[in-house]
Parts: sequence; structure tokens; C-alpha cells
Amino acid sequence: MSEVLDGSDLKVIAFDVFGTVVDWYSGIAAEAERILPGIEGGAFALAWRAGYQPAMRSVMERLAAGEGGFTLLDELHMGILEGVLRDFGVSELDSVRKRELNKAWHRLPAWPDAVAGLARLKSRYIICTLSNGNIGLLTEMAKRAGLPWDCVLSAEVFKAYKPDPRTYLGVAAVFDVTPNQVMLAAAHHDDLAAARTCGLRTGYIERPNEFGPARPKDVSPHSDNTLHARDIGALADLLGC
Amino acid sequence: MSEVLDGSDLKVIAFDVFGTVVDWYSGIAAEAERILPGIEGGAFALAWRAGYQPAMRSVMERLAAGEGGFTLLDELHMGILEGVLRDFGVSELDSVRKRELNKAWHRLPAWPDAVAGLARLKSRYIICTLSNGNIGLLTEMAKRAGLPWDCVLSAEVFKAYKPDPRTYLGVAAVFDVTPNQVMLAAAHHDDLAAARTCGLRTGYIERPNEFGPARPKDVSPHSDNTLHARDIGALADLLGC
Repeated sequence: MSEVLDGSDLKVIAFDVFGTVVDWYSGIAAEAERILPGIEGGAFALAWRAGYQPAMRSVMERLAAGEGGFTLLDELHMGILEGVLRDFGVSELDSVRKRELNKAWHRLPAWPDAVAGLARLKSRYIICTLSNGNIGLLTEMAKRAGLPWDCVLSAEVFKAYKPDPRTYLGVAAVFDVTPNQVMLAAAHHDDLAAARTCGLRTGYIERPNEFGPARPKDVSPHSDNTLHARDIGALADLLGC
Repeated sequence: MSEVLDGSDLKVIAFDVFGTVVDWYSGIAAEAERILPGIEGGAFALAWRAGYQPAMRSVMERLAAGEGGFTLLDELHMGILEGVLRDFGVSELDSVRKRELNKAWHRLPAWPDAVAGLARLKSRYIICTLSNGNIGLLTEMAKRAGLPWDCVLSAEVFKAYKPDPRTYLGVAAVFDVTPNQVMLAAAHHDDLAAARTCGLRTGYIERPNEFGPARPKDVSPHSDNTLHARDIGALADLLGC
């Protein structure tokens, strides 16, 4: 490990959340099947998540053009949900149930290694979220799943979404450290690449089942990352916690 | 309790921090005496804290006039510290030691009842900070003192300082609840009065020794507050936690 990273100089580990720390596929699938009997939950989860990137791009373009304010992920999810419900032929869901379903993203289960792995990392580093999820969503999720964050950081704090450099550099500024004293841990190479451009260290977390067991993800290492770990417990091993 | 407050409808308790949850007087006094041998720590702490209100007022006036950006409390503290050091005849403190002293505000001790009382409240409510302290300061303080916040909220998140309504209403917005589902807990009646104007419930916490044992503070109840508690444990008692 010491050749890869002098851990004594690292101060903060910021975690991407959806897919990296929590299992959105299983969580959304189960909640969709509970609230919408007869729905194929896995397909519903994939469709809902597939709407995220285009919706986020469109919000970022409007924000950059000065044509819209900052949008909370809860609102973005609700907009996408309307379309997914139509596509799945659900027309009779009342607004209370729709809101309950939308907040399924607040109730996602942690990956089995997450709580214990984070607790080990917390003993030595500041651990925080860095997610495009809103603060309320991330806080309720953490409370429910027992995620022991020192601090919940979000696009909502920086009024900019990942991969905007203001988010990655914002973490370093909040804790008054240099960018290379911060590591982003994520299951997504594009997120890590953007963080690296800002001078952060990067830790890739394998989540082969992020899109469900039927669609295994390529989790092969990219040599650009500072560390590559099977899960959050393995990241704690690599960092000597 | 049920006549005073239907606790089942309350969702979030937001805490003022300096004086309410942590003992700035003892913490700063001890750190000043450690870093500046020969200094009378209590007097130093009182002088430093006395500079806070005028400095904050001036920052808020500049912000309102569009003449300055948001200032972190760490920077504000450093500006005040320069003057206090001059007043106490300290001229030879190097910048590393000055920065260490300034970060004494990150290392304040919790009042003896705080950690256990917050843990009880956390079992039933979302508990967060609502402080003019910056996020990094509040996070490092919590990590060191073991304060079990669900979430660190700060003037830095809302880009407005208490008593600006955007801070109190911001807590309700973050958690998607109505203002009366939020309680501000604080040892300062002016903070509570501003929160009340925004529709929040208020819990006064007695801290008779906030300014040191030689300067006991009047902690008599104001009938406008929803609850009045000797300490955070007593607040948990009143809320049936």
C-alpha cells in the first residue's frame, strides 16, 4: 500500500452514494413491487435509473445557460417517475403513493460491506458523501441504513452537480485541505476521472451487480485510479484501517 | 408533555451549537493557556467571543449590500483573533501557531449531557446542527467530541447567517417538512425568537455557565418557548425519548 499511497497524508474520503454505497437496483425493485403489485421491479428500477443521466444533463444545461435554478434530485426523480409510470401502463397512482414511491430513493439498502467498512475508515479519516442526491435524501438514507457519515455533502451544498469541478474541489475547501488530501471513492470510472482532473485521489469500488445480477458490470481496473478495491471493507484494508 | 407539544408531529430538532451543545468558554480558555503560556485563558475566551457579534453584523451588512461574498466563521474568527492578540500584548505568534489557535473552535468540548442526550433524541427525530459555524468546523468538532448528528447544517449551506429566515426555513425545506415540524434548540433567546417568527417550535436549553462560572447567565424561562429544559438530557425527557 505504501508505494501506492501514503495514507498518512490523506485526510478525507468522499463517497459517491448510488451504486457505490447503496444498492439502488434491489431497493427500487423491491419498493416498486410493493407499491405497484404486478410490476416487474427490476425492469422498473432500470427504467427509472436510465432516466437520470438525460434529466441531469438537461438540468445542467439549463443551469449553465442561466435559465433555471438548482433542482433537487427528489424533483428530478419525480419528473422521471411520471414517464416511467406511463411506460409501464400505471395510470391510477394517487399523489400520496407516488410521493411514497419517489422517496424509495431515501430508503435504499446499503451494500452488505458498507456500514462496517465505513466505520473502519471513519476511525482514521473524515468520511462524507459526495452525491448529486439532495441533503434530505442522503440524511434519511444514512439514518435508516446506519451509514456513519461524519458529514453529508451534496450537489445541494455546492449548487453544482458532479462532474462539475466545484463539487470535488468543494470537498477540499470545506475541510481546508489540498485536493490530493481527498479521495473520491466510487463505482463509476467517469466520476473518478473527473475527480482526478481536479487533483483528488481516486478509489474504485467494484459493484458488479449494480444493475442487477442479470446484467453484470465490467469491473476491471483502470490503472489511473490510486486504488482498486472489491468493496468498502477492502478499501479499508488497502488504507491500513 | 402532551399538553405542551404533540411530539409525534415533530420530525427534526436543529441545534444551535456554540454555548448550547459545546462549552466554548472552557475550550477556548484551555487552548489559549496551552498555546499562549501566561495568558489568562478565561479573559481571552471572553474577549474573542465578544468580537463575534460585531464582526458578524458587519459581514451581514456587507452581504446585504452586495459588497462581499459569504465569509466562513474560521475567517471571521481569525480576523477577531488578530485584534485580541494585540489587546493581550501577544506580538510574536507565528502563522502556524495562530492557525492552530484559531482552530481551537474545532476542538471545543461538549457539555457533559450533550452526547447521551443527542443519542436519545436521535432515536426518534432527525437531529442536525444549525449554526453560523462552517461545515468543516462543525464536522471536525462532532468527530472529536462524538456528537452523533444525522446531518451538519450550517449558514454555509444556506449562504445566509442566523437570524436570517432562510436558515430556519432552510432546515424545513431540506427535510421536506413544515416549519412547525422543526424545533430549534438553543441556549439563546434571540435565536429562538427568530426561529419562532418563521414558525418553528423552540426549546430553550439552560447553560448558566456559558460565560464561565464567574459570570452566571440568567436562564429563567420565556413563556414564548415551546419547551424549557435544564440540558439536552432534560429535553429528551420532555420529548419522551
